[in-house]
Amino acid sequence: MCQLLGMNCNVPTDICFSFTGFQARGGATDVHSDGWGIAFFEGRGTRLFLDPQPSSTSPIAELVSRYPIRSKNVIAHIRKATQGAIGLENTHPFIRELWGRYWIFAHNGNLLEFAPGLDGSFRPVGLTDSERAFCWLLQELRGHFGDEQPSDEALFEALHVLTLAISRYGEFNFLLSNGNCLFAHASTRLSYIERRAPFRQAHLKDQDVTVDFSDVTTPDDRVAVIATQPLTDNEQWEEMPPGSLWYFAEGEAVLSRATLPGPVRNKS
Amino acid sequence: MCQLLGMNCNVPTDICFSFTGFQARGGATDVHSDGWGIAFFEGRGTRLFLDPQPSSTSPIAELVSRYPIRSKNVIAHIRKATQGAIGLENTHPFIRELWGRYWIFAHNGNLLEFAPGLDGSFRPVGLTDSERAFCWLLQELRGHFGDEQPSDEALFEALHVLTLAISRYGEFNFLLSNGNCLFAHASTRLSYIERRAPFRQAHLKDQDVTVDFSDVTTPDDRVAVIATQPLTDNEQWEEMPPGSLWYFAEGEAVLSRATLPGPVRNKS
Repeated sequence: MCQLLGMNCNVPTDICFSFTGFQARGGATDVHSDGWGIAFFEGRGTRLFLDPQPSSTSPIAELVSRYPIRSKNVIAHIRKATQGAIGLENTHPFIRELWGRYWIFAHNGNLLEFAPGLDGSFRPVGLTDSERAFCWLLQELRGHFGDEQPSDEALFEALHVLTLAISRYGEFNFLLSNGNCLFAHASTRLSYIERRAPFRQAHLKDQDVTVDFSDVTTPDDRVAVIATQPLTDNEQWEEMPPGSLWYFAEGEAVLSRATLPGPVRNKS
Repeated sequence: MCQLLGMNCNVPTDICFSFTGFQARGGATDVHSDGWGIAFFEGRGTRLFLDPQPSSTSPIAELVSRYPIRSKNVIAHIRKATQGAIGLENTHPFIRELWGRYWIFAHNGNLLEFAPGLDGSFRPVGLTDSERAFCWLLQELRGHFGDEQPSDEALFEALHVLTLAISRYGEFNFLLSNGNCLFAHASTRLSYIERRAPFRQAHLKDQDVTVDFSDVTTPDDRVAVIATQPLTDNEQWEEMPPGSLWYFAEGEAVLSRATLPGPVRNKS
């Protein structure tokens, strides 16, 4: 299995603090040492850093943890390989272009015998179930909406239907972003926190590092951080119920929909 | 205008030496300070580092110049903006997926009023003439060959026809790779060197750095380096005639075709 980290903000924010804790789980405080990656949206552009080395010892991860790249949407992943060997082509997050925007995707879980029909518009380069699911998602979104990018709310509704379909094949925690907003699916395990004024101190679980967010924010800032496991030990993280798809925009959870049979849990 | 750097090898080789000289041209020894980027193929995977900052002062460029990433195909670019503002989305090289392989493209030049019909299969994210040309190239290659990736030789022939079509719109020096081989078009200015045994010392033009390749190679290694301007001052670089498209594989120039009217210059 793997671990996911996402950030969605209303102003470009650096992720150095959260990434420092997350990075340690890639071979130091945890076992996810089969590669790591992180993608930053900056306007319409994207920076994607990938390394098949453990994040705890990767010189590129070291740079990322110290170099403040300000972004409204970030997706990071540390890998414990299930399907697909250790190698750059199987390292998350994955990138594709659709509707003249970059899309970034990372997955934690395991999809068994998921072999969807792919028409060639998006084709996996590596051998993971994850990249296959990403390609199918984009193919189906494009098939559904045609050549024009719909609203993010319409995307969320379509993604809900597609996520239900894929979830039948197994564990499917994922983060997906087009640079505008961030979609998160808690299949088994995912938590989030929304930070807003009044900002306080936060202390990492995985390293003895504290930041006082009131020193580095303005009162209007809003930042949502999503992670497989809470990254800090002195803040209240919200556990996302297993089987829920979330839509984050401008630093807050805007919508969620159940993706498991049972009572529908909607937030609006 | 911009500057291009490419490398094609028969064994994975690091580009630290060449990149050190190239990097200096991004704001230190030359004026190309509107961003830079470099893409490394490792097997089917790709690492792409992009930064809208000048390469001469970019911490990411500093890391890349010191961190030996071994690759058989590399494309780098330093930018002096013509079309499209300074920004990550307009920073070369660009990446797309076709036939389950990543494709990387960087351009030096200026295409005037180049507004091809794009069917939506590959769409620019930024505003450069360069990304538009890349999207059109991939669209036309896919249209020509369908769903199955052809041989690199067949790709070269198709690319020749497409390059002729685009070249009518202006200066179109480019580097393109699918990870197997590297295509290079000299529209106005591009040089290359093939290094093979017996290896010798090389000294950079832009910084006082010397490397003795005989210390870091085996007798079977072959490395082709392609650059807008020669990077070393004690080696014999070959100027690629204006209006010539080249196909590099396994560290050597295999084929070239004229892309200007006039006597056909073929190498085979």
